[in-house]
Amino acid sequence: MNINSKSTLSKKSYISVDILTPKLISNIFTTADKIRKMSFEKSSKILKGKLVTLLFFEPSSRTFSSFASAVKRLGGMTLEYQNPLQTSSAIKGETLEDTMRVFENYSDAVVMRHFEKGTLKRAVDAVSIPVINAGDGIGEHPTQALLDAYTIQRKAKSLSGLTGVIVGDLLNGRTVHSLLKLLSLYKNNTIYLLSPQQLKLEPLFKSEIERKGVHLIEISSQSEIPLTADFWYWTRVQKERFSDIKEYEKLKNKFVVTPELLEEKGNNKMILMHPLPRVGDIDVRVDNDKRSVYLSDQVKNGLYIRMALLSLILG
Amino acid sequence: MNINSKSTLSKKSYISVDILTPKLISNIFTTADKIRKMSFEKSSKILKGKLVTLLFFEPSSRTFSSFASAVKRLGGMTLEYQNPLQTSSAIKGETLEDTMRVFENYSDAVVMRHFEKGTLKRAVDAVSIPVINAGDGIGEHPTQALLDAYTIQRKAKSLSGLTGVIVGDLLNGRTVHSLLKLLSLYKNNTIYLLSPQQLKLEPLFKSEIERKGVHLIEISSQSEIPLTADFWYWTRVQKERFSDIKEYEKLKNKFVVTPELLEEKGNNKMILMHPLPRVGDIDVRVDNDKRSVYLSDQVKNGLYIRMALLSLILG
Amino acid sequence: MNINSKSTLSKKSYISVDILTPKLISNIFTTADKIRKMSFEKSSKILKGKLVTLLFFEPSSRTFSSFASAVKRLGGMTLEYQNPLQTSSAIKGETLEDTMRVFENYSDAVVMRHFEKGTLKRAVDAVSIPVINAGDGIGEHPTQALLDAYTIQRKAKSLSGLTGVIVGDLLNGRTVHSLLKLLSLYKNNTIYLLSPQQLKLEPLFKSEIERKGVHLIEISSQSEIPLTADFWYWTRVQKERFSDIKEYEKLKNKFVVTPELLEEKGNNKMILMHPLPRVGDIDVRVDNDKRSVYLSDQVKNGLYIRMALLSLILG
Repeated sequence: MNINSKSTLSKKSYISVDILTPKLISNIFTTADKIRKMSFEKSSKILKGKLVTLLFFEPSSRTFSSFASAVKRLGGMTLEYQNPLQTSSAIKGETLEDTMRVFENYSDAVVMRHFEKGTLKRAVDAVSIPVINAGDGIGEHPTQALLDAYTIQRKAKSLSGLTGVIVGDLLNGRTVHSLLKLLSLYKNNTIYLLSPQQLKLEPLFKSEIERKGVHLIEISSQSEIPLTADFWYWTRVQKERFSDIKEYEKLKNKFVVTPELLEEKGNNKMILMHPLPRVGDIDVRVDNDKRSVYLSDQVKNGLYIRMALLSLILG
Repeated sequence: MNINSKSTLSKKSYISVDILTPKLISNIFTTADKIRKMSFEKSSKILKGKLVTLLFFEPSSRTFSSFASAVKRLGGMTLEYQNPLQTSSAIKGETLEDTMRVFENYSDAVVMRHFEKGTLKRAVDAVSIPVINAGDGIGEHPTQALLDAYTIQRKAKSLSGLTGVIVGDLLNGRTVHSLLKLLSLYKNNTIYLLSPQQLKLEPLFKSEIERKGVHLIEISSQSEIPLTADFWYWTRVQKERFSDIKEYEKLKNKFVVTPELLEEKGNNKMILMHPLPRVGDIDVRVDNDKRSVYLSDQVKNGLYIRMALLSLILG
Repeated sequence: MNINSKSTLSKKSYISVDILTPKLISNIFTTADKIRKMSFEKSSKILKGKLVTLLFFEPSSRTFSSFASAVKRLGGMTLEYQNPLQTSSAIKGETLEDTMRVFENYSDAVVMRHFEKGTLKRAVDAVSIPVINAGDGIGEHPTQALLDAYTIQRKAKSLSGLTGVIVGDLLNGRTVHSLLKLLSLYKNNTIYLLSPQQLKLEPLFKSEIERKGVHLIEISSQSEIPLTADFWYWTRVQKERFSDIKEYEKLKNKFVVTPELLEEKGNNKMILMHPLPRVGDIDVRVDNDKRSVYLSDQVKNGLYIRMALLSLILG
């Protein structure tokens, strides 16, 4: 079978949501829907004989294992590196470009995470095989954006006309940036933004999203959360972005989802999302609420979205 | 083929020898015997399409690779993590429960080692997929107990009516604890216990084993080892359990198997076992003695026992 | 198919180029040529059901991933360890011999890198399964020698009657030592040697190579490079072999390939090789020159040579 006959992703890199169009997104989601229903017998033929390098220069367990699972469930092989600065030629002074060209000789694609924004662009320029961005510093996390949007669409049946609430570190949160960019491709979306004063969305980026037609409304307390939201997208304040630990401690639990908040401000049709890890910003008493999808549907959808992407790029 | 039709382990977790019964043990051993004779062609169908996460929070090469081999030889796929405290969401402050629930979305079972006793129980409670204990601090190491018993049974043809000698750190040695519990399920077993005064079996635990019918005899020197043993189970004094290194140095080689000791106290039908690693507590000159099984049968049996367990749980 | 019917490598270890003969080398190269043309469908049957342990006690990304790719592309399974001193029984004080014997019970062969020369010999002596040397300190790197020779032969159509230039750290460079030994098996080879005064070929080793018939000519500056070379084999000055960092800084870029040097001293039929990583000793402006093979053919040939070796040893 050829599930990517109409795709424009074949042999392409995916390092930013900037290349996405509603048509391409629809293609990816349709592919994810198909793969979700496939037997292993069938799915494991898609990447047969293909080898994918997972090159992670920054700690990760969730995204790393999501990609590793995706490759393996599609019948592909992996070369796996975590923190390769300590275990590779990098400590002998090799450039990123040389490392990439070596892996180009061994593998059919590279999935890469790096702590420094912009590194993924350099990686793509160095080789002719596809590169997939698994997060680059405070830059983008474009597969997370797809899985977030996929999760919203599966519930709300559309990515237009939505009301959403995004909470937490809007300044440094790369998942927030990528999701906002993606939602800006659709019409009539209204997003409420709630963050500590020091972690507000960067003004230039905010203008850009607004210019594309998203209605952004900054609110300053949980009491202003609208009752009509389709989704709440909660994020943690990221310890690793702070140089002053006291500043972090002060802000980390400024906004917390509790059963009480969900009772007061939630509604029946909404879903509660989180890119994980959470660190106290969603009360565990909310975990068994049927609207909570952060430890279930959202994670599972990530697996299917990554399988879909790998299929479309390499299948 | 369905090798687990009569099993009660299907989809169950295995974190303690407490769930074992003679019937279940017999089922596991029979399965191990069958797998031992299978071609790869046949064995590799048992876990086809199944993905097992190996989540090791404590260094391990032997148990880790034994499980990894077992999954792969059964045709399954692995997600592999060693020391994930350094490479995962744990450093971002994620709870064990959240980590487990994420891996639940990617995989069909989790094999877990942790440095802290009791953590495995928490892991099991967090998810609905099976969890296998690969060692939890000074707690249990229940697959080691099975492979030890399997090794004894293959030689002595029974787990009842045995005479055994267990030597070393009986206070902290989790393999000792698990093996004694397992042997207490059978009748007429007599075990001689030899350890430094400071590392004797904990009195409450000793009473419990005796109450179940095992005849325990504490001895204080190698000269008291009986001539009629079916097995010697030697263990190292564990450096990592000592805060005072001098105390460790004093005790570590108090009891050592030498060719002379084996000549004097051994017999022809016995086997010499060790859970490994050894650190001088068995003289290398004994390695080629036909009774020494610690670097051969015992290790190999571990592979088959883990294959059997995975088959019964997931197959 | 049986690609190793005439091989003498079956079930043998490969830890030094000393076992090579022109006939064996020819057999390996022919096997590599065959594998290069195979479909994955066909190549993936060669190691079906075989498990290879990759045991790396020293950082490596290139060689590690080359071997991992090779095993997987041949349909085999891997047990993968990098820096196992930190994650294995080694920290509990286990000997190398015991570690090897444990892995012998799990796997069909071990590929091993170690920081200490001579360790590979100990590893081979400990077990009865094949062991492949992936680099042992300043000792040998015998698969690199094969891939280097294979790269030369594919271009020059012979390993006799060659003129070569070898540059860099000739004292500590294990790839240089292994390549010189290999070339000494053939007739009429002339090698120009260029290195800092402190990093010249060790005199005893030099005499040995000369006695076998290689014509060695030491030169002291780039201006003496002959115009008729079949290959330039450039190597880096290895930072990790210096105790005095200042000394390293002084020597590291004494010899550099630039477009100008290649224009002045190169010829049309030659190739420019490097075992990688490079650290400024080949100017990136040379990368796109058609004679540069260090980031392309040479790396790819490494994959095929390792697939050929694994086939001949285990297939």
